[in-house]
Amino acid sequence: MKLPGQEEFEVSSACENVPTGELDSGPGSGPSPDGPSDTDRGELGVPKDPLLFIQLNELLGWPQALEWRETGRWVLFEEKLEVGAGRWSVPHVPTLALPSLQKLRSLLAEGLVLLDCPAQSLLELVEQVTRVESLSPELRGQLQALLLQRPQHLIQPTGTRPCQGSAHPREASHSEEAPLKEQRQNPLRQKLPPGAEAGIVLAGELGFLAQPLGAFVRLRDPVVLGPLTEVPLPSRFFCLLLGPSTLGKGYHEMGRAVAILLSDPQFQWSVRRASDLQDLLAALDAFLEEVTVLPPGRWDPTARIAPPKCLPSQHKRLLSQRREVQGSSAQHGALAEDRYGHWPQAPIPELQRTGRLFGGLVQDVRRKASWYPSDFLDALHPQCFSAVLYIYLATVTNAITFGGLLGEATNGAQGVLESFLGTAVAGAAFCLMAGQPLTILSSTGPVLVFERLLFSFSRDYSLDYLPFRLWVGIWVATFCLALVATEASVLVRYFTRFTEEGFCALISLIFIYDAVGKMLSLTSAYPIQSPGYPAYGCFCQYPDLGGNESQWTKTEPKDRDDISSMDLGLVNASLLPPPECARRGGQPRGPSCHTVPDIAFFSLLLFLTSFLLATALKHVKASRFFPSVVRKVLGDFSSVLAMLLGCGLDSFLGLATPKLTVPSEFKPTLPGRGWLVSPFGANPWWLSVAAALPALLLSILIFMDQQITAVILNRAEYKLRKGAGFHLDLFCVAMLMLLTSVLGLPWYVSATVISLAHMDSLRRESRACALGEPRSFLGIREQRLTGLVVFILTGTSIFLAPVLKFIPMPVLYGIFLYMGVAAISSIQFTKRVQLLLMPAKHQPDLLLLRHVPLSRVHLFTAIQLACLGLLWIIKSTPAAIIFPLMLLGLVGVRKALERVFSPQELLWLDELMPEKERSIPEKGLEPEYSLSGDSEDSELMYQPRAPEINISVN
Amino acid sequence: MKLPGQEEFEVSSACENVPTGELDSGPGSGPSPDGPSDTDRGELGVPKDPLLFIQLNELLGWPQALEWRETGRWVLFEEKLEVGAGRWSVPHVPTLALPSLQKLRSLLAEGLVLLDCPAQSLLELVEQVTRVESLSPELRGQLQALLLQRPQHLIQPTGTRPCQGSAHPREASHSEEAPLKEQRQNPLRQKLPPGAEAGIVLAGELGFLAQPLGAFVRLRDPVVLGPLTEVPLPSRFFCLLLGPSTLGKGYHEMGRAVAILLSDPQFQWSVRRASDLQDLLAALDAFLEEVTVLPPGRWDPTARIAPPKCLPSQHKRLLSQRREVQGSSAQHGALAEDRYGHWPQAPIPELQRTGRLFGGLVQDVRRKASWYPSDFLDALHPQCFSAVLYIYLATVTNAITFGGLLGEATNGAQGVLESFLGTAVAGAAFCLMAGQPLTILSSTGPVLVFERLLFSFSRDYSLDYLPFRLWVGIWVATFCLALVATEASVLVRYFTRFTEEGFCALISLIFIYDAVGKMLSLTSAYPIQSPGYPAYGCFCQYPDLGGNESQWTKTEPKDRDDISSMDLGLVNASLLPPPECARRGGQPRGPSCHTVPDIAFFSLLLFLTSFLLATALKHVKASRFFPSVVRKVLGDFSSVLAMLLGCGLDSFLGLATPKLTVPSEFKPTLPGRGWLVSPFGANPWWLSVAAALPALLLSILIFMDQQITAVILNRAEYKLRKGAGFHLDLFCVAMLMLLTSVLGLPWYVSATVISLAHMDSLRRESRACALGEPRSFLGIREQRLTGLVVFILTGTSIFLAPVLKFIPMPVLYGIFLYMGVAAISSIQFTKRVQLLLMPAKHQPDLLLLRHVPLSRVHLFTAIQLACLGLLWIIKSTPAAIIFPLMLLGLVGVRKALERVFSPQELLWLDELMPEKERSIPEKGLEPEYSLSGDSEDSELMYQPRAPEINISVN
Repeated sequence: MKLPGQEEFEVSSACENVPTGELDSGPGSGPSPDGPSDTDRGELGVPKDPLLFIQLNELLGWPQALEWRETGRWVLFEEKLEVGAGRWSVPHVPTLALPSLQKLRSLLAEGLVLLDCPAQSLLELVEQVTRVESLSPELRGQLQALLLQRPQHLIQPTGTRPCQGSAHPREASHSEEAPLKEQRQNPLRQKLPPGAEAGIVLAGELGFLAQPLGAFVRLRDPVVLGPLTEVPLPSRFFCLLLGPSTLGKGYHEMGRAVAILLSDPQFQWSVRRASDLQDLLAALDAFLEEVTVLPPGRWDPTARIAPPKCLPSQHKRLLSQRREVQGSSAQHGALAEDRYGHWPQAPIPELQRTGRLFGGLVQDVRRKASWYPSDFLDALHPQCFSAVLYIYLATVTNAITFGGLLGEATNGAQGVLESFLGTAVAGAAFCLMAGQPLTILSSTGPVLVFERLLFSFSRDYSLDYLPFRLWVGIWVATFCLALVATEASVLVRYFTRFTEEGFCALISLIFIYDAVGKMLSLTSAYPIQSPGYPAYGCFCQYPDLGGNESQWTKTEPKDRDDISSMDLGLVNASLLPPPECARRGGQPRGPSCHTVPDIAFFSLLLFLTSFLLATALKHVKASRFFPSVVRKVLGDFSSVLAMLLGCGLDSFLGLATPKLTVPSEFKPTLPGRGWLVSPFGANPWWLSVAAALPALLLSILIFMDQQITAVILNRAEYKLRKGAGFHLDLFCVAMLMLLTSVLGLPWYVSATVISLAHMDSLRRESRACALGEPRSFLGIREQRLTGLVVFILTGTSIFLAPVLKFIPMPVLYGIFLYMGVAAISSIQFTKRVQLLLMPAKHQPDLLLLRHVPLSRVHLFTAIQLACLGLLWIIKSTPAAIIFPLMLLGLVGVRKALERVFSPQELLWLDELMPEKERSIPEKGLEPEYSLSGDSEDSELMYQPRAPEINISVN
Repeated sequence: MKLPGQEEFEVSSACENVPTGELDSGPGSGPSPDGPSDTDRGELGVPKDPLLFIQLNELLGWPQALEWRETGRWVLFEEKLEVGAGRWSVPHVPTLALPSLQKLRSLLAEGLVLLDCPAQSLLELVEQVTRVESLSPELRGQLQALLLQRPQHLIQPTGTRPCQGSAHPREASHSEEAPLKEQRQNPLRQKLPPGAEAGIVLAGELGFLAQPLGAFVRLRDPVVLGPLTEVPLPSRFFCLLLGPSTLGKGYHEMGRAVAILLSDPQFQWSVRRASDLQDLLAALDAFLEEVTVLPPGRWDPTARIAPPKCLPSQHKRLLSQRREVQGSSAQHGALAEDRYGHWPQAPIPELQRTGRLFGGLVQDVRRKASWYPSDFLDALHPQCFSAVLYIYLATVTNAITFGGLLGEATNGAQGVLESFLGTAVAGAAFCLMAGQPLTILSSTGPVLVFERLLFSFSRDYSLDYLPFRLWVGIWVATFCLALVATEASVLVRYFTRFTEEGFCALISLIFIYDAVGKMLSLTSAYPIQSPGYPAYGCFCQYPDLGGNESQWTKTEPKDRDDISSMDLGLVNASLLPPPECARRGGQPRGPSCHTVPDIAFFSLLLFLTSFLLATALKHVKASRFFPSVVRKVLGDFSSVLAMLLGCGLDSFLGLATPKLTVPSEFKPTLPGRGWLVSPFGANPWWLSVAAALPALLLSILIFMDQQITAVILNRAEYKLRKGAGFHLDLFCVAMLMLLTSVLGLPWYVSATVISLAHMDSLRRESRACALGEPRSFLGIREQRLTGLVVFILTGTSIFLAPVLKFIPMPVLYGIFLYMGVAAISSIQFTKRVQLLLMPAKHQPDLLLLRHVPLSRVHLFTAIQLACLGLLWIIKSTPAAIIFPLMLLGLVGVRKALERVFSPQELLWLDELMPEKERSIPEKGLEPEYSLSGDSEDSELMYQPRAPEINISVN
């Protein structure tokens, strides 16, 4: 069931955030529902070792009150018992003092090593271990009794409060071999994968021993050793380190050393296969060869190092030692390719040109057809319900925001109703037909900007907008079809980060500029009344009630036009407010009758509140507060919540702020048109041909927007199994373009952020995530049903329309601003612009800055800024509508940059274009590169690419 | 010139942020202007070793283009050459692979070790080093030429741009022995203290050598080795590690290993005193004993670890080895005392009870008198100018804010003018007389709160406020005098953190509540006009101009009272705005004539803007942006800048927002009173006796506020040389209380935050701070002149008063809110309240949480919250004025807590009260404590106490 090329993706997803036990087996194994066949064999074709849970039980209280207490535990990282606080520490990278490892080595070398010990119970094991010559029979008995004593575990419930009860001393009977209730109920058990084994280390000071006693046991068959471990796992390893008081805390440290050794995957691998003491010591020496040393005095050894976000690759280590053991050097080649696995970017198989007309489309359809039934069956998982709810809310918010903005931009030719209808129809159709059904179609920033320009163009030339737009749509569909036929999607590889970021930055800036501009334009619509304001006051005049117009007396005829100084001569007038006046049959007169006070500042407050609230809520997700569920909800629904709060504030004060215009019944927002747009309207016939020109520009825009998003969504790190469909996606977009143009609905393309959120809500992850390691990512639940349901729900939400008229426009502008700011903050370009403002010594330690001179980084940034400035100038002239062409021009600028920057500079600042990729030798770039950068960064280059770009501001 | 007890302070300031060279010598040495006598002897009485700058020159380009390039440098931390970027990396904790240390050991053991080599130049040194048997004469010549080749250094100017020029390859003549221009101009040179020496490591792959060549040289007299080092320092150590290609990058790593060894103070100490190879190897082994080991696979060895904020103490290491060498175990005792040096808190000698009436005061006066001349001479330093400017601006801002608030709170009995005058008089007098002249007197939150309560009390009982207040002041002065006489200041040790934080939290909450309350009250003063607002409109009526009142016709007499529906019958009326109407002789009539629109929301905007801006600017200080000078200015003057921006915004829009009331001439704000308050006024005579009751409460408040601040200012970590004067300070405050009451000026006590800022602006620091280590703190410029000048300037600023009337009140409220929020955010109590909202696994790794069970932490927080709630309730009742008594009650609550919490819990959550301190054994607290907490935290306990509390909200 694997596609060709898929292995490459898996290999290049190099950040190995997988628990030890899964390290060997690669993604897709473990509790994965889809990959049962992978479970027993790892990446290297080696049988998978089970995950090892290691526990240190320490003997305390010598000489009076001897008791065993669990003081540390390990899977990947160390958790330490905080004795005073009665809780487990945060998981951290374990640190050791070197002498404790050396002391351990000599103790093991002299001690008892039993490999493949056949003991079947704790009692048998204890008997085996104490069968040492140096012990007298009575001492042996004492020791055996001590070893059988039940240890104390601190079993911590998942809640916030540590369970104090289980930490109380309790004497247990020696023969208690069955797992205890508290062991079985330990929540930690749920977090360890099935098949996990335990390693148990017993260490401590025991005064009655004349000399240190060390024993290392590997059990032939793992056995549950009664109450020894806090979780009733079968134990595979058992280590005993006891001795007289001379060493003091040395036993504790040696015990930690054994535990840390066992938690090392490489040592574990070796010791599982060791056949004698020499193998064991060799494994220890191999470990010592690899340790990192921190000098004393420069590092406080008591400081705890947080687990790194991305574990270093173990490939090299695993490989080197296994080759020694197995002599299987054949796999070396495969891994060497992996060395620069993520770069040059793995060629995307779907973007190989077939050379036939519509060849790519046909391939896409064939590929996707085989998955079609599973696209519905794979959706049968509870996770899909929450995904639907989440994406539905996001989609509706988007439909409202973009609908509101479109309605304003096009003077009602588009509106909220069209937005809902169009989103539902286009989105659902796309989910049913598309190559990448996880994509969520939406109005996006670039298309919105273009539509606004198109509308103002048609208004300037007094064109009938919707028919003109219909022809633009028809031409766009035609051009896109031509792009599909010629497999133009393969050109997407020329859109490097430079182009993507220029695209994103321009659209974001337009968003920010528009949001602020619209907000400020409200202050002219609702002017602020300053104290010297000339027009002031309003009165209510009743017509002809015992008087008439002639009752106006003109004492100062020269001031006639100045209504504010005109004297009142009317008998029948009052100071009723205008609505009340009108109700009583009067007529409001005066300069300030139509001025509503307070609206301007209140709108500004609403605008700022919704912007700041949305931003703040987004940050809640990364904060320490609240349980993760609450944080996730607050972060994910930040726009919805900000919008709701804005509406609440507005309706609480009941001011007449401008609201979203929503038709009161189910009909197009523009009065007097049906659902079908007439093909010509009031336009001359030749306009249908002339529409090809703007259509060409829009096609460029749609192609760029759609394909950049598609590339991001189909990145290797998402581990998609069903492949992409770039050509099919573009074909669908073209067809939907046609449909929406005919119906006069907004245009849609793939939206990056919301689609990524969709994928994120469908992540499959390993369950085992005890003790600080991040969950491992197994893939995405690829199916068509969640998207379909989301859009069906969006369709039914059209009947929510009457509620929407309570949404104040300033709130929408605030969300709009938030989108723009969020998008522009997410790109690397912004980070480089920030570098311009930072003194060199305060700059973050970016890989980029380690490899490219700062002046070159600044030059690159300056060129990008200049391009952006040029684009902005073009956008501000009457020629604004050609901006898509200029965006495409960025590709040319990027090509020209190859003359200014060296390939390795461009590699760090941007990425390479297809031709250059091939021209760079596989290993290293130039002598300088290999000089010192090599060992330093090779690991860091394995870090996965985060989806850095919110290209479609949405 | 040292006071008794001062040594104890220096010893207990245990975070040793001192460069290596100063580690031995203790604070006060190095470039300190005051401690020349300390320069040559360190803390342990051992001659001080100079600071060592270590540089690694690597041989690159074998076999074609051999060149030496500096690729790393060390003082405390490592800086690495980023070859591609052409710049030095950020300083980081060096990490090593263990094998490179072991290889180094064997290479040194077999190689050439020259200790006290008498070479006088690079040429001689090279000859000595190459005199090895294994080299043929021609090889030796080749090697010598190579070693004399001039290396390339990347010399980075202090600015943001790395100097590319010096990184270009340049061939130098071999005999160039004098330091080069670029060496002499290296800005790094300025950062190394005088007397610093260099250590130089040459490492690399040299194919023509048959076997590795290792040489370690200690020069008898340090010599400037020509262009070998990037700074022309005399070199003491020279190490050569060359060999055939078999090792590859091994030479680079061995070179780093030597450099890291040499940068270790302990190794350096030993190797300076080593007499043969065995000593050298023993030092290396001692180093290995102490290293911290990170297991492979759990830590990416290429990740760079940022330098820790606080270096671990080297006492134990230094001591143990020196004892071996010198056998001087006598010093051990002194250091063992230091083990818990900061806890129990070092008894403050000024707070020892003498037992005589006014005994403490007399001692204080005596102590300070001897320093009096130096208190003026020590101010002759340019740093004092910037301190004056900074503190002056802060003081004026404070005077404006508190003056404005006092003016409102006391209905004009106090005002901005009084605030300026009082601050100037009281502050200057205090600076001249006080025990701790670095203290800045100011209106503080607690006193402000009390004054407001006192005013509303006197208003409720129709008292003449200022005479009543005068008597309160007289009584307070009397009580305070009694407190001085009885040496009550020693009781200050009962004010533990629990009391301090309760005090601070209550005052901060009152600030926050008042700021928001005052802001909201503006919305009732300037109501928001909602659409259905009944009263609407305003017209202008001209009196008797061809008509009179009888011209009003009453068509609907039943509505007569309802002015809004009353018909107009006047001929002579217009819609002129009220001010214009009044100017033309008319009279504004109508319900909304006195309503000013937009003010409410605009005020809210001003309020939020000034609050958010002040908060944001404060955070700029810790950001990465802008040069440090700009960041410091923005952060330090955040309130001033926020206030200026608010005023600018207000005057730009020109709205009639409420402004600060300032008298137009130099006279008291309250009309009709002179500068001297009459002793009785309209009050009955017995009120002068009854005033003793509120005075008692105020005395408690002043005592707590003054003494808590004084304790914070005189903490050991500030290394004050001239001692404190708790009794003298309180005496001065009492006298000033009397003076300000007579003159009817605000009351003043010491203000924590502004005084700390004053001290901070007078810090003396070591200049040497190259390569990532923090500057070491040498002490404070203790003198009386800066404070005096600040208050003289404040006095002259009274004539600024006319400018102050442009300050809108909402801006002041915003700053007020900012003060409250900043104060409450700074206390540990707030952090513990936040813990209540955090799931256990997201909680920060606080020492507190490592030692106290979470449930106990939460219990303690809950008790504090309950106390705060109770205080708040009392504050809201008519009995509000007794709140100082309740604050004192916190001491009782704290005492009672000893029954609920164990001493070690209280030690972590709070601090110990004097009796308990003595009752705790010196080492460890209980068996449980010594079980595992010992080694883990002993180092961390050395961290200095930051001034955590902004007790006086100012």
